[in-house]
Amino acid sequence: MRIVCIGAGNLATRLGWALKEAGHEVAQVFSRTVESASALAGKLDCPFTVRPDEILSGADVYLFSVKDSVLEELAARIAPNVGGALCLHTAGSMPMDVFRGHAARYGVFYPMQTFSKNTAVDFREIPVFLEASDAAAYGLAEELARSVSGNVRAMNSADRRYLHLAAVFACNFVNHCYALSEDILRRIDVPFDVMWPLIDETVRKVHQLPPREAQTGPAVRYDRNVIGRQLDMLEGEPDMREIYDAMSRSIHRLAQEKDKRKEER
Amino acid sequence: MRIVCIGAGNLATRLGWALKEAGHEVAQVFSRTVESASALAGKLDCPFTVRPDEILSGADVYLFSVKDSVLEELAARIAPNVGGALCLHTAGSMPMDVFRGHAARYGVFYPMQTFSKNTAVDFREIPVFLEASDAAAYGLAEELARSVSGNVRAMNSADRRYLHLAAVFACNFVNHCYALSEDILRRIDVPFDVMWPLIDETVRKVHQLPPREAQTGPAVRYDRNVIGRQLDMLEGEPDMREIYDAMSRSIHRLAQEKDKRKEER
Repeated sequence: MRIVCIGAGNLATRLGWALKEAGHEVAQVFSRTVESASALAGKLDCPFTVRPDEILSGADVYLFSVKDSVLEELAARIAPNVGGALCLHTAGSMPMDVFRGHAARYGVFYPMQTFSKNTAVDFREIPVFLEASDAAAYGLAEELARSVSGNVRAMNSADRRYLHLAAVFACNFVNHCYALSEDILRRIDVPFDVMWPLIDETVRKVHQLPPREAQTGPAVRYDRNVIGRQLDMLEGEPDMREIYDAMSRSIHRLAQEKDKRKEER
Repeated sequence: MRIVCIGAGNLATRLGWALKEAGHEVAQVFSRTVESASALAGKLDCPFTVRPDEILSGADVYLFSVKDSVLEELAARIAPNVGGALCLHTAGSMPMDVFRGHAARYGVFYPMQTFSKNTAVDFREIPVFLEASDAAAYGLAEELARSVSGNVRAMNSADRRYLHLAAVFACNFVNHCYALSEDILRRIDVPFDVMWPLIDETVRKVHQLPPREAQTGPAVRYDRNVIGRQLDMLEGEPDMREIYDAMSRSIHRLAQEKDKRKEER
């Protein structure tokens, strides 16, 4: 397929690369700045533009991978000029309807993954969640998705909002716990890699057990002595104290629910 | 060495097993209940007792792997009867001094890992943090530690408190984020394994990048639209809302600090 990439961020870069490797033609890259547009166009060996009115017509798919905050505006501006081509966006938390009234055929192509500029990722493993305005559009989106991923599913906009929220907990909040852990280790001059065996095991366990069955540590039984001492250690760090406190109470509450269900059996 | 295991929980089970596999003799298991004491003694093929005054004398090491809340009491009761043997506890957040005045030679043997009854773990990968009352005691503790782990380090009680707090963030809080993610997925009838590629990638990234460099998602730039909508979706879940809100503000604050440092360069 001939594809125009709207956007040149981390996701656009990884996805553009995967599409090219799968044998598609990336016909053009559009981005707001010459710097980002030319960087991605260079990687994909294709032309670029920074002007919406210079976006090529005649491609099969226009793939919008841009910040949520500019997606609606760009959809309204670009989609009306692409004729019967398929417009897709890649945003987990945005509804398909940002294209309604602007594009004839449209949908969502949400690859649920965390993308960085500097770390490559195996696209075939990434679950891609699809939605489209009609069956023909869905068929085309599915063909595109299956060419890059071995894990393609249908999901509507209402459900995808929850999926994206679940991903924020399982990825962004998890990563932030690592960042705070590193901050604490810095106080005793211990490098973060000391945590890797514990981190890896924590993840390995949730491949085998439901997370609430896997929980350990002082908050499960709400050990007041440990929790009190640890809150004291976070004096002067209001963000971390707040997170520690909210997490500990919530862990304890889930553990109590679990015990209660066990008793009722 | 001849070792008596005080305690029969997840850590005692995994450690007792590793010690036996390393060729040590576990001479006895003590635990508060016949059920837990006999279960571990059965696995280690050794006698057990539930009475502190029946704990064997003449072993080389008495290894206390018990809840923090009962450690002091058991140390005071058992350590005075073991002569010159080495008393060790395995609690990350408890000071070595729980043995002071009760044991002649003592120390801490903290294997930093999350232990479950039903998932085996490769003990050789686990970092073990040691501390002891004198050089001879340290030598013995180190010999024991090196027989089960390839990753043995010295750390004093003051630093170990921070290490343990960092572990609570990197393991228990991370696991709780997974548990909450699973809760959200349950609302749309999606099984948790859909998150595995994202979870695995999030962890893979912090083996390559400092966690704060790896962060992505709506909180980095504090995208008010996404954050507002996601908080609305958590209406009726006060724990999750509180965690979502505290995490998002804290992620944004770290990202701002990072940008500020970049500008100053």
